Amino acid sequence: MTSRPGADDRQVLIVGTGLIGASVGLALTHAGVRVFLFDTDPTAVQTANIRGAGLPLSSTDEPDIVLIAVPPRSVAGVATSWMQRYPQATVTDVTSVKAAPLAALRALNSDTSRFVGGHPMAGRETSGPESARADLFEDRLWIVAGEPENSAARVDDVRWLARKCGALVIDLSPDAHDRAVALTSHTPQLVASVLAAQFADADPADVAVSGQGVRDTTRLAASDPDLWSDILAGNAAEVAVVVRRIQEQLGVVVDALIETDKQGAQNGDVLGEAIDPVRAMLVKGNRGQQVLPDKHGGAAHTYEMIPVVVDDRPGQLAKLLATAGDAGVNLEDVRILHTVGRQTAVIELLVTPAAAAPLRAALALGDWQVRG
Amino acid sequence: MTSRPGADDRQVLIVGTGLIGASVGLALTHAGVRVFLFDTDPTAVQTANIRGAGLPLSSTDEPDIVLIAVPPRSVAGVATSWMQRYPQATVTDVTSVKAAPLAALRALNSDTSRFVGGHPMAGRETSGPESARADLFEDRLWIVAGEPENSAARVDDVRWLARKCGALVIDLSPDAHDRAVALTSHTPQLVASVLAAQFADADPADVAVSGQGVRDTTRLAASDPDLWSDILAGNAAEVAVVVRRIQEQLGVVVDALIETDKQGAQNGDVLGEAIDPVRAMLVKGNRGQQVLPDKHGGAAHTYEMIPVVVDDRPGQLAKLLATAGDAGVNLEDVRILHTVGRQTAVIELLVTPAAAAPLRAALALGDWQVRG
Repeated sequence: MTSRPGADDRQVLIVGTGLIGASVGLALTHAGVRVFLFDTDPTAVQTANIRGAGLPLSSTDEPDIVLIAVPPRSVAGVATSWMQRYPQATVTDVTSVKAAPLAALRALNSDTSRFVGGHPMAGRETSGPESARADLFEDRLWIVAGEPENSAARVDDVRWLARKCGALVIDLSPDAHDRAVALTSHTPQLVASVLAAQFADADPADVAVSGQGVRDTTRLAASDPDLWSDILAGNAAEVAVVVRRIQEQLGVVVDALIETDKQGAQNGDVLGEAIDPVRAMLVKGNRGQQVLPDKHGGAAHTYEMIPVVVDDRPGQLAKLLATAGDAGVNLEDVRILHTVGRQTAVIELLVTPAAAAPLRAALALGDWQVRG
Repeated sequence: MTSRPGADDRQVLIVGTGLIGASVGLALTHAGVRVFLFDTDPTAVQTANIRGAGLPLSSTDEPDIVLIAVPPRSVAGVATSWMQRYPQATVTDVTSVKAAPLAALRALNSDTSRFVGGHPMAGRETSGPESARADLFEDRLWIVAGEPENSAARVDDVRWLARKCGALVIDLSPDAHDRAVALTSHTPQLVASVLAAQFADADPADVAVSGQGVRDTTRLAASDPDLWSDILAGNAAEVAVVVRRIQEQLGVVVDALIETDKQGAQNGDVLGEAIDPVRAMLVKGNRGQQVLPDKHGGAAHTYEMIPVVVDDRPGQLAKLLATAGDAGVNLEDVRILHTVGRQTAVIELLVTPAAAAPLRAALALGDWQVRG
């Protein structure tokens, strides 16, 4: 480590110039970092190069950091090759599983002291270097999964890279990372998919009465099945633990529903104790929903919702929000709701409790039709 | 039925002046309908009356329609009393279960030919007549659950009432209603609650890496446990069928994950066939998510998402949307994303594919920082 360059002279090789790799290249290049590009597909390198993500790797280049941007199951093999080629370099990756690639590297007897896994929590619906963005990681979390065998300088290399991309660094061990994303990302993905799958073969007439609630609950189900199969396979043990628990708790709920149905036929309008396990789950769901961090990363705020009825045409939303802006009110969230068969919309404005009264006053002055 | 009044002379009694009952009273009164109010709690009647929802019921009143706005398990008993008092009246309710109250009415030997169930698909986070709104049902669906034994005139009474409240009427039999909402409303509620419940006892460090995906998936978990216990008890058999199916499919997923984990330890970076049942579920989830109706009630549109980086302060959002409005672009949806530790936000603008290019051009002219 005697020949290590100063912080701002570090050169980065990106292996795999798809969406994530090319976006890292763009971000680093914009930040003044020298970036080399490699991909088994020369066209992908060319596209990334034309987009400004860096220079095609040449045989004389000596990168200080190698970022492996390939699917989870390919990380260990690809990383091992490049570690052999650049025996001084720090090597990192970008996948959303962290323990499995490390175990695979160890199985290959690779020098894991130079490998520090990473996970930028960003993505797009599209893929490929043509969709790459220099600001894809700006303001996003980038988990750096160092291990005790990594020197501080190795971990610092990856933190530096993440911050150069505009991301916010969070340190988690590989196991802690995998446990956390199993709970907060991989399991919600699976649950949303299985819930949405119920609509695939359902009677269209049944599906027609769907509202905003089920749309929100199943939004994640639109994700790419190939990418997610790979991710879930790479974190299978941790995800299985959480999904099994959910599966068991749904079993308790079903049993309670069946018992409730049986007793309901006998007891008429008395709500018996049979439903209690369901109520307990609803109560616990309230608690769990409350502890999720809000958009700014703190515990969930309680916002006040102010619904406004508008015509569903250009400019109405802007005029409405101008009213809020002129009143000095910061909107925490905005939701647009439409209804079957009408071309009016309801705009729900979410504000802090303190901002609710000034906003209501401003809307009244502006002749807006506040629903409530 | 010889003495039935003309359409606009129908008088309505509302039994139960909570949020829904009082809101119906306000809506009908605003529409020029004569409304009487009754509640076992005289204070609730008084509050609803002061808010303008109607007049306290007097002994000489002769309502043509009685709307029972009480929890599901009380509908049959309350409806039977009022059917006896007004032997000509059409009687309806407002609960989100339809077969159980009807079965209970039959068990009481009530005149079910005069009972036509209803379900206005609207509500608020708050309750009580003080939260009532005249426009609560405007542009919302109102399911009318007539049966063959109901005459056309009886069903028409309830359709008329729903439309007077500004709602859009959908006709479904009680069984069809219960099956549809079990799939699209009651099951998503339970699944969201059980998923969110996993965070209640989780390590806060694990929960800290949550993003927008899991927030959307668990938003429904904030619902009122008492109200939802009653709803789920009233539709227990239908909900049990769907939740059991989800439970079984999650079991298949867990088995596949465990098998994948076992094989993965042996096969290194080869993604084996063990994950195939998971991929199949993700693919089916894609299909199910696609068939959900969009906001206007058609099949889901494919919108283009244009992300814009803004300072998270008053007026920015309005200025941004004014740019879109000035360009004649109608926004289909707007999502505000924040990140831990930063006070900038990303506004995602969703537009039809045809509107994307004009919007991008307008944003570029306005010096907006488009991420992509």
